[in-house]
Amino acid sequence: MVMNSVPSTDAEAQPSPPRLSADHPGVNELFAVLAYGEVAAFYRLTDEARMAPDLRGRISMAAMAAAEMGHFELLRQALDARGVDVVEAMSKYATALDNYHRLTMPSTWLEALVKTYVGDAMAADFYLQIAHGLPDEVADVVRAVLAETKHSQFVVNEVRGAVTSSAKQRSRLALWSRRLLGEAITQAQYVLADHDELVDLVVAGAAGLAHLAGFFDRIQHTHDERMRELGLA
Amino acid sequence: MVMNSVPSTDAEAQPSPPRLSADHPGVNELFAVLAYGEVAAFYRLTDEARMAPDLRGRISMAAMAAAEMGHFELLRQALDARGVDVVEAMSKYATALDNYHRLTMPSTWLEALVKTYVGDAMAADFYLQIAHGLPDEVADVVRAVLAETKHSQFVVNEVRGAVTSSAKQRSRLALWSRRLLGEAITQAQYVLADHDELVDLVVAGAAGLAHLAGFFDRIQHTHDERMRELGLA
Repeated sequence: MVMNSVPSTDAEAQPSPPRLSADHPGVNELFAVLAYGEVAAFYRLTDEARMAPDLRGRISMAAMAAAEMGHFELLRQALDARGVDVVEAMSKYATALDNYHRLTMPSTWLEALVKTYVGDAMAADFYLQIAHGLPDEVADVVRAVLAETKHSQFVVNEVRGAVTSSAKQRSRLALWSRRLLGEAITQAQYVLADHDELVDLVVAGAAGLAHLAGFFDRIQHTHDERMRELGLA
Repeated sequence: MVMNSVPSTDAEAQPSPPRLSADHPGVNELFAVLAYGEVAAFYRLTDEARMAPDLRGRISMAAMAAAEMGHFELLRQALDARGVDVVEAMSKYATALDNYHRLTMPSTWLEALVKTYVGDAMAADFYLQIAHGLPDEVADVVRAVLAETKHSQFVVNEVRGAVTSSAKQRSRLALWSRRLLGEAITQAQYVLADHDELVDLVVAGAAGLAHLAGFFDRIQHTHDERMRELGLA
């Protein structure tokens, strides 16, 4: 690993990131956990679509789910090019990601929508922070996989509409959203605790920061922004 | 409608098909029933993926389901270009297609695989026969939507493997497959009975044939071919 030699005195500044090799063993792990995340999200979206009030809502969820499989296919190809079988590589991440979804089962259509929006944003933050220090050939795969779907606006409109007309809904969904953040951070910590290669990528990717706290602080910060967008702040 | 003026003495011959106008009201109906079929297939595949014996099987089903939503998007765009809202247009086909899936719920993973393969083939036969007489701009949409997914080989391999080693499985799955054909034809007849514009497309598209019997005979014929491919003949 090539560490950035320029000391940073300001955690908010963005110095030239350290450049990790594309051969870093953490890259396969990063692609693998992303890949399992896509498949888990696919099945979560299709499950939660059952709560949709109408056919239009079910179609929106199905289209989002289909986009996740498009992202999965990019990761499958990227791992294949690296000589790695995606299914074998991703299986070890099943527990943490399945636990996250099991512990955050929405009980209403609005909770499902908030989970989609907030969950996608947290995943994007998490992975893009890691990708920041990676060579372009690796970072480009991560960015393509995390490209925002065009369906997000549908979620924002539905949630804002509901919370504008009901203060009770707003406080319920704000609580729900904090719970999503808490469970996501818990599971992310489990994943990192078990996979040193990923920790190495996180630390190096976060421009030489010596501790993970800043990493999770930034995820919290972006989470707060998403809450404002949904009218839940 | 412009009918083919050349009398055909051989139902197997393929004379130049009659050319229907792209403005024929049946075209919107054709796209709408196809669109509902894609969404129904999406949810059916994700449901049936629960029976998959492993992660690899679940991923294959998810990838097939995602492809259905790609096809749905083509139809949504085609209808949009014709000034038609896909959701409004497709809702009236929900009953027949939901009934088909409800009446053919697989109870095993192999039944689910056979249903995927045979169902896709029947749908393709049905729609391609209709598309035969349509202007290219319409027929191209139908053909793109029905393009075989690359996942079919996965199904053929799993089913052939299972029925080669068990005569009991072979006869069970052959029976199952005949039931799929029967239910599909029943529901297709309900759809046609309710939608004269579609009947008009079928009759004209089938090179001037005056009766629908030949239409279903040809679907039966292709069904028999699929059975041979799966080792179920």
